[in-house]
Amino acid sequence: MYLKAIFEPKLAQYSYLLGCPGAGEAIVVDASRDVEGYIREAASQGMRIVAVTETHIHADYLSGSRELAHRTGARLYLSDEGDEEWKYDFASEPNVTLLHDGGRIEVGGIQVQAIHTPGHTPEHLVFLVTNTSASAETPVALLTGDFVFVGDVGRPDLLERAAHYRGTMEPGARNLYRSLQKLGDLPDSLLILPAHGAGSACGKSLGGVPFSTLGYERRVNWALRASTEDGFVSEVLAGQPEPPKYFAQMKRLNKLGPDAFGERAFPVRKPGSELREAMEQGAIAVDIRFDAEFAQAHVPGSLNIPLYSGFPTYAGWVLPYDRPIVLIAQDQESVRQAVRDLSLIGLDRVDAWFGVDAVYGLARNGEALGSIGSLSAVEAAERAARGDLCLLDVRGATEFEGGYIPHAQHVPYGYLWDRRDEVPQGKPVAAYCTGGGRSPVACSLLKLMGVREVFNVPGGFQEYASLGLPIASPESAATPT
Amino acid sequence: MYLKAIFEPKLAQYSYLLGCPGAGEAIVVDASRDVEGYIREAASQGMRIVAVTETHIHADYLSGSRELAHRTGARLYLSDEGDEEWKYDFASEPNVTLLHDGGRIEVGGIQVQAIHTPGHTPEHLVFLVTNTSASAETPVALLTGDFVFVGDVGRPDLLERAAHYRGTMEPGARNLYRSLQKLGDLPDSLLILPAHGAGSACGKSLGGVPFSTLGYERRVNWALRASTEDGFVSEVLAGQPEPPKYFAQMKRLNKLGPDAFGERAFPVRKPGSELREAMEQGAIAVDIRFDAEFAQAHVPGSLNIPLYSGFPTYAGWVLPYDRPIVLIAQDQESVRQAVRDLSLIGLDRVDAWFGVDAVYGLARNGEALGSIGSLSAVEAAERAARGDLCLLDVRGATEFEGGYIPHAQHVPYGYLWDRRDEVPQGKPVAAYCTGGGRSPVACSLLKLMGVREVFNVPGGFQEYASLGLPIASPESAATPT
Repeated sequence: MYLKAIFEPKLAQYSYLLGCPGAGEAIVVDASRDVEGYIREAASQGMRIVAVTETHIHADYLSGSRELAHRTGARLYLSDEGDEEWKYDFASEPNVTLLHDGGRIEVGGIQVQAIHTPGHTPEHLVFLVTNTSASAETPVALLTGDFVFVGDVGRPDLLERAAHYRGTMEPGARNLYRSLQKLGDLPDSLLILPAHGAGSACGKSLGGVPFSTLGYERRVNWALRASTEDGFVSEVLAGQPEPPKYFAQMKRLNKLGPDAFGERAFPVRKPGSELREAMEQGAIAVDIRFDAEFAQAHVPGSLNIPLYSGFPTYAGWVLPYDRPIVLIAQDQESVRQAVRDLSLIGLDRVDAWFGVDAVYGLARNGEALGSIGSLSAVEAAERAARGDLCLLDVRGATEFEGGYIPHAQHVPYGYLWDRRDEVPQGKPVAAYCTGGGRSPVACSLLKLMGVREVFNVPGGFQEYASLGLPIASPESAATPT
Repeated sequence: MYLKAIFEPKLAQYSYLLGCPGAGEAIVVDASRDVEGYIREAASQGMRIVAVTETHIHADYLSGSRELAHRTGARLYLSDEGDEEWKYDFASEPNVTLLHDGGRIEVGGIQVQAIHTPGHTPEHLVFLVTNTSASAETPVALLTGDFVFVGDVGRPDLLERAAHYRGTMEPGARNLYRSLQKLGDLPDSLLILPAHGAGSACGKSLGGVPFSTLGYERRVNWALRASTEDGFVSEVLAGQPEPPKYFAQMKRLNKLGPDAFGERAFPVRKPGSELREAMEQGAIAVDIRFDAEFAQAHVPGSLNIPLYSGFPTYAGWVLPYDRPIVLIAQDQESVRQAVRDLSLIGLDRVDAWFGVDAVYGLARNGEALGSIGSLSAVEAAERAARGDLCLLDVRGATEFEGGYIPHAQHVPYGYLWDRRDEVPQGKPVAAYCTGGGRSPVACSLLKLMGVREVFNVPGGFQEYASLGLPIASPESAATPT
């Protein structure tokens, strides 16, 4: 048996290619939209992809399953389990086979058996893999999707908190607890191959080891050690990070059926002089340069989402799905990367890109460029204490609750636009996050809202905490030092 | 705990970076010479490498441990177990700590415990990893080096067959059997993280799954299921592939201590007109273009090692360590790749490279270029049957014994130069392997030996076997069909 875990670092996401070299056949589980990668990988091993499946309707990225099946002619296996309201809308397509609890897919000598494990989602399946050429009795691995992670379980609150299906959170948590009991008979030796690693918002405490074993998780994973359903339910619903805003859209699109035939054209480069026109016609201008470059000079009205590792998530938090996007970039290679990253979450409407001439052309025409200042953490704290600056903590709730810079006001960057009324007028505003990844996005949003003087605190809370200065907490908030 | 398996496909080799994010510290086990990769990986996780170790004195690649430790200032942990004659020569360097059975390395909350497992080599250690922040009692993984692979064990015959330490093969096999008994108390849930995957010559039947669990290997791995020492010994010594010729050199260099300070300069490109001079001064000319290009036209006296996945192994079989190398290549990018691949096995003496002008310049000067013909498998078989062509099977012994094209003569490509007297004079010679990976190297060696008319059989035995024609075997050899 051939096994390859394919990691997409920008989503902290794993998909798996399992192949039977003897039969020259392979199956892909939980494909992202970078479908070419799977086809290449299978071909490099002399195999063709004959089956495609996924553990559930994903919330954090656009599924590549439908496209991969169409491109390869593979059968597409989809869950038919769970809630009547939560079925795949494209399940009747001729290349689809529906999967139920106990259903099997055979790929050469590999047997893949579905087990229904509702909780994270109602239709969630995990796949028990048996390499019959090694042992027909003992399964080798469990592809756990967003059911069991290394050190954690998939959160059961996304349907409610992200997709707004009210009242599903607690029943989901109870189902999840019961699904965990289904692991009872499986051997300690089973490999646990999850769909996400550390950094994913599909759980709260995913470990930094990419895979595990059932026996080890039984010993150390809090969720598998939980002894009562009620205790488990309150624990699993507590302290989950804010689901990124695009999750609702992903759920919807993955249920409807992502475009299966998409040849995505590479956006054309346009002369800088045409940027204003594009923006006036409704395009949202996203500047993907480093935040220091954007801070120095940028096109007023453009957003800054630097092409760092969190790029798709940041984009998913702040970009709308119903407007065309134009990129402002240093070079074509970063555009290529950004277009690919945006496509992972279905933001396919990148119409054009502009070079830095779009920025400096404006200046030559006498238009004022935007700029963002920079403050050290201690400067920001001092000015906030004096009251001559509004200091925004743009991290998530759990992070904020763990301690913040005194006098900071908490608005997660992803909610900043919706909650723009809370930002005081007539004062400079500074934004910080943990280490300068998210605050540049917040700063560009603040400029977009019309705040005249905006400062980034690139060192963030990490810098502040390293100085040994007093840290505020929600409990102490009544009497900040 | 952070865990990253770093795979080097050209060597089918795994090294591991284990880190404690809390402490910001990491350890690297079984580093290859691409040491920059580990430093970058650790830095990307906000960690620095404080410890470097290896499971044993490797035979199949030049170790990067010494260089990585020097570059990072990390402590270097080396085995002090095993045979008196088989110790690291640089063990007394100030940054070295010697490891014995039971010895421990602590990296933040990670505990790495050495277990002496002689067999593959006398000094071989495996590393039991405990992530104390998850569980101080239950270890999470065993870094097995070349002791236990997925589905196989590390061969105990290399010291004898590759490094020519006579009489070590059978005692090694017996030690290996006893070392396997040391796994007795460890839990089924333990992850097995080996140093090699499928394609390595350090075992005979490595599986295509990159990692496993102790419980699963107990069920399916023939070596862990062997019930008697004698049975195990004869099984483990049978059917091992020929150890590539460079293994002896690797053993020697890894024991002596690979260069720890090597800044390897990129070779300069020289005008084609200077190639002859370089060759006359003793350089060996290696043409790394695709074999079809080499076959069409090449510089007489040059060797063809196409830059495919087996490149370092092919190079290690046929290139000497005591002569400078010059490359003939399509472009600088392939030179970069080749230089890196050659450095993995310590072939660092790449003095210069030449473009294709070196080939066609000769032609313009009226010199004759070399060329190699091409035959289908059936043409080659027919001509061999008629006796007007010498057909060479250049695969390994186990492959040949499994069946060959009738009338073929067996000389593995790596021994072709040494056994050049066995190639008949005055006849065309054709070479085949399995699927055209190794036969081009053999063809270029045949040209170098002075065979006038050489043919490659690119489809190889695979093509022949697919035709349903009679297959010869050593037993039937007396009366070939």
